[in-house]
Amino acid sequence: MNGAQSLIRTLVDAGVEVCFSNPGTSEMHFVAALDSVPEMRGVLGLFEGVVTGAADGYARIAEKPAATLLHLGPGLGNGLANLHNARRAHTPVVNVVGDHATYHKQYDAPLESDIDALAGSLEGWVRRSSHTKDVGADAAAAVAASQDAPGRVATLILPADASWGEGGETCAPIPPRTPHAVDATTVKNIAEVLRSGESVALLIGGPACREAGLLATSRIAAATGAKALIETFPTRLERGAGLPNIERLGYLSEQAMYQLEGVKHLIVAGTRAPVSFFAYPGKPSVLVPEGAKVHVLADVGQDVTTALSDVAAIVAADVEPVRQEASRPALPSGPLTAQNWVEVIGALLPEQAIIADEANTSGLLLPGATAGAPRHDVLTLTGGAIGYGMPVATGAAIAAPSRPVINLQSDGSAMYTISALWTQARENLDVTTVILNNHAYAILRMELQRVGAASDGPKAKELLDLSRPDMDFAKMAEGMGVPATRATTAEELAEQFSRALAEPGPHLIDAAVAPLL
Amino acid sequence: MNGAQSLIRTLVDAGVEVCFSNPGTSEMHFVAALDSVPEMRGVLGLFEGVVTGAADGYARIAEKPAATLLHLGPGLGNGLANLHNARRAHTPVVNVVGDHATYHKQYDAPLESDIDALAGSLEGWVRRSSHTKDVGADAAAAVAASQDAPGRVATLILPADASWGEGGETCAPIPPRTPHAVDATTVKNIAEVLRSGESVALLIGGPACREAGLLATSRIAAATGAKALIETFPTRLERGAGLPNIERLGYLSEQAMYQLEGVKHLIVAGTRAPVSFFAYPGKPSVLVPEGAKVHVLADVGQDVTTALSDVAAIVAADVEPVRQEASRPALPSGPLTAQNWVEVIGALLPEQAIIADEANTSGLLLPGATAGAPRHDVLTLTGGAIGYGMPVATGAAIAAPSRPVINLQSDGSAMYTISALWTQARENLDVTTVILNNHAYAILRMELQRVGAASDGPKAKELLDLSRPDMDFAKMAEGMGVPATRATTAEELAEQFSRALAEPGPHLIDAAVAPLL
Repeated sequence: MNGAQSLIRTLVDAGVEVCFSNPGTSEMHFVAALDSVPEMRGVLGLFEGVVTGAADGYARIAEKPAATLLHLGPGLGNGLANLHNARRAHTPVVNVVGDHATYHKQYDAPLESDIDALAGSLEGWVRRSSHTKDVGADAAAAVAASQDAPGRVATLILPADASWGEGGETCAPIPPRTPHAVDATTVKNIAEVLRSGESVALLIGGPACREAGLLATSRIAAATGAKALIETFPTRLERGAGLPNIERLGYLSEQAMYQLEGVKHLIVAGTRAPVSFFAYPGKPSVLVPEGAKVHVLADVGQDVTTALSDVAAIVAADVEPVRQEASRPALPSGPLTAQNWVEVIGALLPEQAIIADEANTSGLLLPGATAGAPRHDVLTLTGGAIGYGMPVATGAAIAAPSRPVINLQSDGSAMYTISALWTQARENLDVTTVILNNHAYAILRMELQRVGAASDGPKAKELLDLSRPDMDFAKMAEGMGVPATRATTAEELAEQFSRALAEPGPHLIDAAVAPLL
Repeated sequence: MNGAQSLIRTLVDAGVEVCFSNPGTSEMHFVAALDSVPEMRGVLGLFEGVVTGAADGYARIAEKPAATLLHLGPGLGNGLANLHNARRAHTPVVNVVGDHATYHKQYDAPLESDIDALAGSLEGWVRRSSHTKDVGADAAAAVAASQDAPGRVATLILPADASWGEGGETCAPIPPRTPHAVDATTVKNIAEVLRSGESVALLIGGPACREAGLLATSRIAAATGAKALIETFPTRLERGAGLPNIERLGYLSEQAMYQLEGVKHLIVAGTRAPVSFFAYPGKPSVLVPEGAKVHVLADVGQDVTTALSDVAAIVAADVEPVRQEASRPALPSGPLTAQNWVEVIGALLPEQAIIADEANTSGLLLPGATAGAPRHDVLTLTGGAIGYGMPVATGAAIAAPSRPVINLQSDGSAMYTISALWTQARENLDVTTVILNNHAYAILRMELQRVGAASDGPKAKELLDLSRPDMDFAKMAEGMGVPATRATTAEELAEQFSRALAEPGPHLIDAAVAPLL
């Protein structure tokens, strides 16, 4: 057994069944070894940002890591942006980054670069597996490290000779560290804050955005009058009819500060006290109202769901959660706007959908239109590195082949990782992509104003414009084997969206939506 | 004057006239400031790999740096692969990477990441410009550092508050460090080696691949019988009728070792002793023949062109260089093969063309077919990080608007940075892209055999296959505003290539070329 074979066998034994891959020469023994371990599925991405984003999307839905296979420093570099999002999502990901053979590194061959520095920037787990006999044990450690609460990116650097050498040894799975429990004193103190009679907000995040956490949070809010809020960009948010509909903290700091106005106590659970996404001249970085006290119920990596249930047991013993009733918007008509396209989605969202949401400014009105739709999961842009939606949708569809995946995708962000469409076609994934094509980096037009930039002259405007030339996403999709249509009215979008959902395999709709702003 | 204005004004004063840009919120003041400095041209790329590759291509032709504008760590991450190629090319590039405001970094906002670690991995010049009043001086230092011989990537990290703050001061240009001269003793010693009567090879690289270096090298070879060779992946190689036609060292180590067989003395000038691109089991990393002695005439960063001329003055005082005669292949016919497509290019290559060559396996026969074509420049994949061709062609066309740019582009590599086509359309650049579409990572099929991988089972083959689904690059190009055609025969390619060259603006030809291997 060579090192590559021991690696793949160990990954499979630890439950890692999919390897999103973009290999090169130094990874050829890993590629060859795939045929010796039938349980491992190799999925090819045409660019590493697709590979790493797909691994993120997969793990958010499968609740276990996928592996990636990346080619040296440049391959890891191409994958960094979506690994940044995975890091912020606390998604478990196991990167296997091939490197030159150990004895070859000294020669500074053209592809030599500082892989360790790039991997280290992700602040997760990094190990270089220099001896064939250690590869299996290192792989088992990587899988465990990726899943140690709250989850992280684990990167195993695999020199080519460690991969091709004989003497590989598989390693049994290592149990990951489960979340630390929140102690009873903290629970009791938080219960007292909630009963203080002062204005309290409860901001939840991480695993608390799943059903159990939402139900406990809703009960607490109903019993105490606390204002419940969900972090701005949750990794995986369960929504829809039958679940509590808790509003998310706004992306714009003005909006978040409005939501928190008058709050005297901010309880955070599974997330941190909110800060502004960017700094703006003369505006505060911290969004906690002045004079308000922050209380931590559960830090990131602690067992937030149990902690919320424990608090609910004290303050809301006999109180039921408030569940969203089933309701859908009426199907709208007319030229597509920021308002009516979300109504189309709300009206037609299928059962058990997974939404990969990178609609950005075009999607500001989405939550309202889908609150009463059938139950669904929403995956969001946790780290702010754009180009996440198409790859994450791809990985989610691999993880849940029986669920419809809907990628709501702004035009500018789509172009970072557009080749994910090819992987969707190759794997015949049930992904419906709706491109919100407003021909602009609309969010930056807004931000140019918000930062108080001194000028918005023609050269500045030009750098935020995507209309010259207009992009035809339907043609691009067809070029990659994905059937595609174009919609300019709500009626067309509804008809095309329904048809895409009814047919198996990927589809893309290029929707000409007027800018919101 | 704010920091951003002082930065752009200083860049322009130092000769930096183009900023390839993909900005975000933290760069909005830089974007706004573009309108206050009319000499700076902003060119938008839809992905940072396009931005950095364009800066590389621009500098290879303009012989001075462009700036890039990148958004925080993820933006730099997306640009790293082509910066790796620029690093290996010793191309001067000035990155401006926006960062959070200095006071905002402590809050670990979603886009916070270790920009310094990523920039440091490029082993160039890195500075964080934390005070508005220093931004101008830091920018001048960055431009000089990028141009200090032999050239490098300089990265200026620009916090948002340093950019928006008032009190910016421009800084006069700082002269970069010119190449160190090679001392007379070394020149004399090398001349003696050349006159030793033993088998000598002279391997040149870097600036020696321009006219003066080639002429001196040819004279030395003609006078002494030394075998002249050019490094495998030169940054910019001048070729064509009237110039010496010196063969390049092969990419495959078998080929390189064959070229160097029997050599007792290897003189290197402007490059290093050759090593294998990758390690292969049982094969040597170093390609210098056993027992041969390596002599350094000029290390990377030394004045190699003068050194070669000085050696020629000693050993070849009255000897003329051997100049390639003008000759072109006949226009071929029939279905496209690895042989006949290069004949089409050789037959029709226009005057003063710039070739951005990422044809990979499909291009192995290109040098022979173009040797006697009109004089042209060839830019190559210096660092091995694929996805370089389309961006480099884009930047080269910005640098030389009056010259036809020809991007010979393999299909797999094209998909990494395909959105460069949109920038070509937007800027109406005279780039003709020929996609060598063989529906495979053909080079990896070869490498899978060469590394001696134990198996080439169906799963391994699947990861090297691009035929399921086939990609239609013509549709993708049209989707980004570039007129496109498809060619399956040599006659079609010749007709479409001629037409593309005759019309202004970008064109793409999707050429169905049978795999060489």
